Amino acid sequence: MKIENIDVSSYPGSEKIYVDGQLHGVKVGMRKIHQHPTVKIEEGKRVEYPNEDVVVYDTSGVFTDPEVEVDINKGLPRLRETWIEGRNDTELLDDITSEYGRKRRADSTLDAIRFPIEHKPRKAKEGHRVTQMHYARKGIVTPEMEYVAIRENLDNKERGIESFITPEFVRDEIAAGRAMIPSNINHPEAEPMIIGSRFSTKLNTNIGNSALSSGIEEEVAKAVWSCYWGGDTLMDLSTGDNIHETREWIIRNCPVPVGTVPIYQALEKVKGDVRKLTWEIYRDTLIEQCEQGVDYFTIHAGVLREHAKLVEQRLTGCVSRGGSIMTQWCVEHDEESFLYTHFDEICEILNKYDVAISLGDGMRPGSTDDANDRAQFLELEILGELTKKAWEHDVQVLIEGPGHVPMHKIKENMDKQKDVCFEAPFYTLGPLTTDIAPGYDHITSAIGAAIISSLGTAMICYVTPKEHLSLPNLQDVRDGVIAYKIAAHAADLARQFPGADVRDKALSKARYDFRWKDQFNLSLDPERAKEYYLESRRNAPDADDRFCTMCGPNFCAMRISQNIADKCKEG
Amino acid sequence: MKIENIDVSSYPGSEKIYVDGQLHGVKVGMRKIHQHPTVKIEEGKRVEYPNEDVVVYDTSGVFTDPEVEVDINKGLPRLRETWIEGRNDTELLDDITSEYGRKRRADSTLDAIRFPIEHKPRKAKEGHRVTQMHYARKGIVTPEMEYVAIRENLDNKERGIESFITPEFVRDEIAAGRAMIPSNINHPEAEPMIIGSRFSTKLNTNIGNSALSSGIEEEVAKAVWSCYWGGDTLMDLSTGDNIHETREWIIRNCPVPVGTVPIYQALEKVKGDVRKLTWEIYRDTLIEQCEQGVDYFTIHAGVLREHAKLVEQRLTGCVSRGGSIMTQWCVEHDEESFLYTHFDEICEILNKYDVAISLGDGMRPGSTDDANDRAQFLELEILGELTKKAWEHDVQVLIEGPGHVPMHKIKENMDKQKDVCFEAPFYTLGPLTTDIAPGYDHITSAIGAAIISSLGTAMICYVTPKEHLSLPNLQDVRDGVIAYKIAAHAADLARQFPGADVRDKALSKARYDFRWKDQFNLSLDPERAKEYYLESRRNAPDADDRFCTMCGPNFCAMRISQNIADKCKEG
Repeated sequence: MKIENIDVSSYPGSEKIYVDGQLHGVKVGMRKIHQHPTVKIEEGKRVEYPNEDVVVYDTSGVFTDPEVEVDINKGLPRLRETWIEGRNDTELLDDITSEYGRKRRADSTLDAIRFPIEHKPRKAKEGHRVTQMHYARKGIVTPEMEYVAIRENLDNKERGIESFITPEFVRDEIAAGRAMIPSNINHPEAEPMIIGSRFSTKLNTNIGNSALSSGIEEEVAKAVWSCYWGGDTLMDLSTGDNIHETREWIIRNCPVPVGTVPIYQALEKVKGDVRKLTWEIYRDTLIEQCEQGVDYFTIHAGVLREHAKLVEQRLTGCVSRGGSIMTQWCVEHDEESFLYTHFDEICEILNKYDVAISLGDGMRPGSTDDANDRAQFLELEILGELTKKAWEHDVQVLIEGPGHVPMHKIKENMDKQKDVCFEAPFYTLGPLTTDIAPGYDHITSAIGAAIISSLGTAMICYVTPKEHLSLPNLQDVRDGVIAYKIAAHAADLARQFPGADVRDKALSKARYDFRWKDQFNLSLDPERAKEYYLESRRNAPDADDRFCTMCGPNFCAMRISQNIADKCKEG
Repeated sequence: MKIENIDVSSYPGSEKIYVDGQLHGVKVGMRKIHQHPTVKIEEGKRVEYPNEDVVVYDTSGVFTDPEVEVDINKGLPRLRETWIEGRNDTELLDDITSEYGRKRRADSTLDAIRFPIEHKPRKAKEGHRVTQMHYARKGIVTPEMEYVAIRENLDNKERGIESFITPEFVRDEIAAGRAMIPSNINHPEAEPMIIGSRFSTKLNTNIGNSALSSGIEEEVAKAVWSCYWGGDTLMDLSTGDNIHETREWIIRNCPVPVGTVPIYQALEKVKGDVRKLTWEIYRDTLIEQCEQGVDYFTIHAGVLREHAKLVEQRLTGCVSRGGSIMTQWCVEHDEESFLYTHFDEICEILNKYDVAISLGDGMRPGSTDDANDRAQFLELEILGELTKKAWEHDVQVLIEGPGHVPMHKIKENMDKQKDVCFEAPFYTLGPLTTDIAPGYDHITSAIGAAIISSLGTAMICYVTPKEHLSLPNLQDVRDGVIAYKIAAHAADLARQFPGADVRDKALSKARYDFRWKDQFNLSLDPERAKEYYLESRRNAPDADDRFCTMCGPNFCAMRISQNIADKCKEG
């Protein structure tokens, strides 16, 4: 298999660097953007003033490392394997545990689409918990914690920027449940990253096929592409054919944590008949995915039987797939949800692999009219209760949030979440601030995402232009990621996150200096910036002109502005 | 001349309607979106429940009226002419006043590009002021005021929604300077619209050529296109050739108020040599444009000599074209700006035509680092002083605002503006909440625009994806307008503007009912929504399927949700 049509091998004007840790010998990948000097003419002479390189957070993994040749048929290097082994609290199993997984493996008709290498699954030794929360509570600073501390700091120290983020700070935040590092021991390919309100704002992307579309190659391409543009985590929401095999390809080639919604696959196993869903099928699905290396599961355990009546009163009912499945299950069986009743058992499975729980918001509003209603907030209260329970098992937790929420109702969501969920990291889908712009919901929701993350939401889930209409293609993934990079970065600026403004300052200075190439290279999407710039300059394609076509040569305020500065200096 | 490549003759599933006024016989154009019934199967029978039509604000003028055939060589019907004549305080001049205008007219080489019909200019009779503010202060409710009162209400009354907006309320807001209706007596083609913090949020679009690009036809097309997508006002920022003639074509065919920055043309008249700019040239330009029908002028009269030193301290200096020109002029001449010293005279020209002043923010920050600095706020204070002066002359006023501002500094802008500008309507460019996304600045700025308009900004000036890079083409105009329609509408929802949520509710209900066509028709960009929907359904192009490709048929939460509702009803 090959990834075609996309080039993720480098960023323009940039260099892959690795920053060494002091505790565990970790090497943290970052991207260094080189800049050209500022050129001035002084007393008739050309004088160059150098501009500092800018180091930025890099989610692309070794795909952008020229020293590493990635073959997606082999998967990425297993970065964390020695760290995990070094802890001596896990063991390799002789075989995979899931019955379903074994059945798939035995099916030779699947050989053609199977990932070529089989890794034995790893699990905690009897009586052990192997979660980052467990270690943090023991006072241990793991390599993962050191890694993220360095990653959050970029090269702030070198630039003389004070940051509060140390490996010990990371540990304490994880111990308190205020932050988490999704890090399944069976996904050692992933580079550690941290999600928490005191760290830089993260963004999740969703990919995955549905019954109507899209093969394995396309999904792997989307995964890699999403990491290239800046996705911090990736959810595989596949509901079509070959979910198991697709996921294997994605996990083995994904440098960021991977999440799933296991109920989707469980439902596929019973051919879409909600009534036939059972705890046993779900449990086998959890284990199957734990052993493949999924880093976090969305589990809609807060959807209860009593929600059915509340959903009925809404304008748009229940718009969460998992939420609607579980509501229907409760109604069909007239029983409480098995996700709720088996929650402790779920946690005891997950802490054997360090899979985190993302408590799903099955009752998120699907229209601004349904925002902040009883169905939504009742569920949020239950998610708080479940958070405590998960933490008793040392399982790391995320809390999922809405959805469609008009701007004036956003703050209440954040306040309420902080209040009832004990500061567990909040992870929201947008929110979309109006319902009337299908085709542009990356924008309606980037507005809400920027606002809610500036208030303390730790991770925002992207929405692509195709939301509500169809599955995103590669272009939509790029558009969605960039819109959310913007929202996350705007929030980091608003929160005055240490060092967040370095890139803005550098880009603005490049703009003022007419260093066009630097301006492109420093931007979130260098290719597109350059393409737009050149589009109207077919006759004058010198990217170092001291103006742009927007104002033309005579009306460039920046150029005039520099003349004024020069004049002032002379005078 | 013909407008090619764009079709602005109708909106899908919509009807042009006119609502009659009670006072002056005004007829207010609106767009009514028809809906299909909700279909249910009850006891084995198909039952239809009708859905109410949705009336939305319509900026497209008679272009979308099937009864009117628009010929851009003749211009639009002169809607306000009889209203203006009826006031008996104006007269038609025998000839245009501007020397430059006469010179252009005498130049037969321009015949080929000249608008074919010459209208005699209209001016206040000696001793009269003809501004909406003047009438409002006299206690008069003009047809323009009645028109906007109806327009702001849509058909709220019919829907039983209480609104505070009456013609008298409009008059009082204008008298207080808290709102304004840009309405040059020489632009009777424009449909009245109101800008003020107690009215629905408006958006301005910018078009115009520069020395490097774009002819008259293209600019007229952009103007009409921008109105079609929802632009409430239009600024012609041309700086290239034939500014005078281009503007004539635009004004005669523009159903919304037109603004300009007269200093641009004044500078063209002195071939770009700032030193040669004089009050006399500027004055002649003002009169030339007053008599063509420009509805509001951006005037950077708050840029003073002392700003030069402040600009020097900034990361990105002065990024306003008008601001940088005036700063340079002050420095070159070592004199105070003639816009400031001649401000009373300017007002006495403008109140003869009812041209409003948009007090330009020549010192707006061009990078987030420069936001809210001394240069910016010093100018804002001077704009407050000038507002009072303009109001003494009964001239209507807008205050222009930034620019690049990180989210946590946005509120201070609004607070300060309210504080020092006596609640004159605020009109901001974005603001852009980060500097690092050239190519996507419609998004970086839609975030800021939504926030600042939810706080009380009356009009937001769009930013297109090409900002900072090149001049927008038709596609960019559409993308920019839709991004800003989203921001403005999100703000109206947040401000709980009466009736604002009607469209959201209708669209969400259509979504829940799987009435795909209604969902498209109710959306801000029906074409794009439909295109995206169909893109992945080449094999199943029936727009009435009860699912979309995003989730596929088995995983549609809305469908499951409806099954649950049915089940609950049965049980």
